[in-house]
Amino acid sequence: MKNNLLFLLIVLTINITNMSAQETLNAEDSNPIKMGWMKGFPPNKDSVLSVADGSFFEFPAMRYSVNHMRQFMPTTRVEAATNNQYVFYTQIDNSIDSVLFTPWGSKETMTWKESLSKNYTDGIIILHQGKIVYEKYDGGLTPDGIHAVMSVSKTFTGTLGAMLVAEGVLDHKKQAQEYVPELKDSAFGNATIRQILDMTTALQYSEDYADPNSEVWKFSSAGNPLPKPAGYEGPTNYFEYLQTVKSEGTHGEAFGYKTVNTDAMGWIISRVTNKSIPQLLSEKIWKPLGTHFDGYYQVDGAGIAFAGGGFSANLKDAAMFGEMIRNEGYFNNQQILPASVVEEIKKGGNLKAFEKAGYTSLKNWSYKDMWWITHNEHGAFAARGVHGQTIYIDPKAEMVIVRFASHPIAGNAANDPYSLTAYHAVAKYFMK
Amino acid sequence: MKNNLLFLLIVLTINITNMSAQETLNAEDSNPIKMGWMKGFPPNKDSVLSVADGSFFEFPAMRYSVNHMRQFMPTTRVEAATNNQYVFYTQIDNSIDSVLFTPWGSKETMTWKESLSKNYTDGIIILHQGKIVYEKYDGGLTPDGIHAVMSVSKTFTGTLGAMLVAEGVLDHKKQAQEYVPELKDSAFGNATIRQILDMTTALQYSEDYADPNSEVWKFSSAGNPLPKPAGYEGPTNYFEYLQTVKSEGTHGEAFGYKTVNTDAMGWIISRVTNKSIPQLLSEKIWKPLGTHFDGYYQVDGAGIAFAGGGFSANLKDAAMFGEMIRNEGYFNNQQILPASVVEEIKKGGNLKAFEKAGYTSLKNWSYKDMWWITHNEHGAFAARGVHGQTIYIDPKAEMVIVRFASHPIAGNAANDPYSLTAYHAVAKYFMK
Repeated sequence: MKNNLLFLLIVLTINITNMSAQETLNAEDSNPIKMGWMKGFPPNKDSVLSVADGSFFEFPAMRYSVNHMRQFMPTTRVEAATNNQYVFYTQIDNSIDSVLFTPWGSKETMTWKESLSKNYTDGIIILHQGKIVYEKYDGGLTPDGIHAVMSVSKTFTGTLGAMLVAEGVLDHKKQAQEYVPELKDSAFGNATIRQILDMTTALQYSEDYADPNSEVWKFSSAGNPLPKPAGYEGPTNYFEYLQTVKSEGTHGEAFGYKTVNTDAMGWIISRVTNKSIPQLLSEKIWKPLGTHFDGYYQVDGAGIAFAGGGFSANLKDAAMFGEMIRNEGYFNNQQILPASVVEEIKKGGNLKAFEKAGYTSLKNWSYKDMWWITHNEHGAFAARGVHGQTIYIDPKAEMVIVRFASHPIAGNAANDPYSLTAYHAVAKYFMK
Repeated sequence: MKNNLLFLLIVLTINITNMSAQETLNAEDSNPIKMGWMKGFPPNKDSVLSVADGSFFEFPAMRYSVNHMRQFMPTTRVEAATNNQYVFYTQIDNSIDSVLFTPWGSKETMTWKESLSKNYTDGIIILHQGKIVYEKYDGGLTPDGIHAVMSVSKTFTGTLGAMLVAEGVLDHKKQAQEYVPELKDSAFGNATIRQILDMTTALQYSEDYADPNSEVWKFSSAGNPLPKPAGYEGPTNYFEYLQTVKSEGTHGEAFGYKTVNTDAMGWIISRVTNKSIPQLLSEKIWKPLGTHFDGYYQVDGAGIAFAGGGFSANLKDAAMFGEMIRNEGYFNNQQILPASVVEEIKKGGNLKAFEKAGYTSLKNWSYKDMWWITHNEHGAFAARGVHGQTIYIDPKAEMVIVRFASHPIAGNAANDPYSLTAYHAVAKYFMK
């Protein structure tokens, strides 16, 4: 099971907390450069991280690995723009560091600057009105680095799905089995594209990592590109696994944040476009944006990209995506996404369905096209990754925040108190 | 053993011939797009290529894999230029297709154009006086593709080594153990930097893949990033393996084309620069050249790049390297390598030492700084990869040919009759 942990930890859960004594290291002390992982020729035995024993994704080593995923596993490229590369206008505003906010559950205020290390921030860019007003790197990330975005990957898949719906390639009322007949006998078969995009499918599927019988372990085993153990007779890739997912309940009633929805969506998208997710993302979004750096996806043994959590990207390139969304699809002198796609996302998903998922700290949020919609007074919405990665868009404040992070706790509940509040405070600062 | 084969086949040998009935497929019929490897969502079982069973590097599947090495194994990036990207001037000369040559051992002439498929050429660029005069892609390679160069990797390592010698960072008369004490008890310990760079070390090391007891299998096992089998007690990475290489004979007397020399050189280079080969290659060469695409190296379980054969690169970027060498280190408005480095390479290595290696078809050649020197009347010299990859530089004809290929026979003896002769004919065509 350990062997699968690695491929698994990358799947987002809000439940998992893999804390131990060592994990209380703060951001400064757990800085991967300071820790010296994989440093030297050869590295000391103690500093070698391995997929085989799972060490590469245990905190604090994980803070190294998020910057070097391709060094541990097979990947495929998301090709950057080869011409018309976009260059942001930059006008740094250092007074953002002093912006004060009150974390949830706290009586003390905190400054924006303090929040960065509190959240194990590896890199952060704030755009205001399309200009870079804040940009910091830490924890081993550099401006030309590539960082695992984990479940922010879902948002890229969801956005591509919504784009295909807007283009009429997919009908969001149709069932998955109409596009991918192989899903017919699975829970996804009679789920609509809309239900999959909004994760209101009713699946007999647990992402509880603490339970060795959770379905998520089987999903992970299937997608693990390492050779299968002798006698293994389960599914050998993501798509084979998806066909085994059983239903539990009625589709459309409750939001259930389950990574397999995104991989089912990835399959549907690839089937109708005849392109892999990395290829389609490059052609439809990454190249038009004018990105500077190739991103990449981890792949399974059949070369299938992990659409639900396997993307790694450059921070500034991700900021281009965020700004494109804020501008309703228009960026780098072209309409990259139909404006209607962003309009629909902003409207949000089913509030009642979301409520049933029981996120006590995310009151009145919803989930739409694999975006998290805050429904706050600024209409903010976000992509969210398990270790605190985000693309946070505040339309009213004309602000985009893109953060890469490697928080020791695999679940946003741990960093939200110091993140969402901080983002909103900066938004209000811009609106003064 | 099968499990290692994959990581092994990438190591250059001139001995191996892994032909079978299926391998008689010609270039057109073995085109990987036509074969449909890894095509579809999901790919058909029969078209899935795997590292675990070795299928990914058997011909004809290998023709797919050379374009997708990162999809099968862990890799590290060789970052391309982020500014001052070089753009070649292009003036295509279609009459090159009609250039005639007589292959070795043949009485019939052949046209340049015919030689391309004969050699399973995936991509080829001819530069004349620094301009692109010929550029073709086939076999699944595209202008933005990244292709395994295999033993052309050695030339990059050797050139970096020669550069450090010229800069005084390395003394080519000193022994390896002075830089890497861990090599003291190995055959490399008392070999000089010069002997390692020119592969005149005397090693008890066979690269005969047909012999299951060959040392090359142990080297491969050590570098294989897949989890080691239960009970494995051998070296767990390239550097550990190098320490076990025994001597046989006297250094400096005979050329012996053995990949481990390059990996020993890679270790020495990394030790004195404190940088990995991918990092140093990027900083010293790839970025200054003004390359457009990140290259990458396969890495072992300790993250150590396979300096002797693990590089994959873009064809046009590789052409920039060739043209820089032809111009004695000057390219993209800067002196990237000291001119003396190229002057020394051109002089060639020890002819008598080379002769002892018994290459009947490479009469009067020599090997210097991990370049093959033809000593022909044009003073041509080349980097050479096992499936026909080359960077061929003809100073007199002011010509550089860069070819990526995937010849079914892993050994240049198979394609040289149709390659070296063709290159020389084009050189003479330019000199008319």
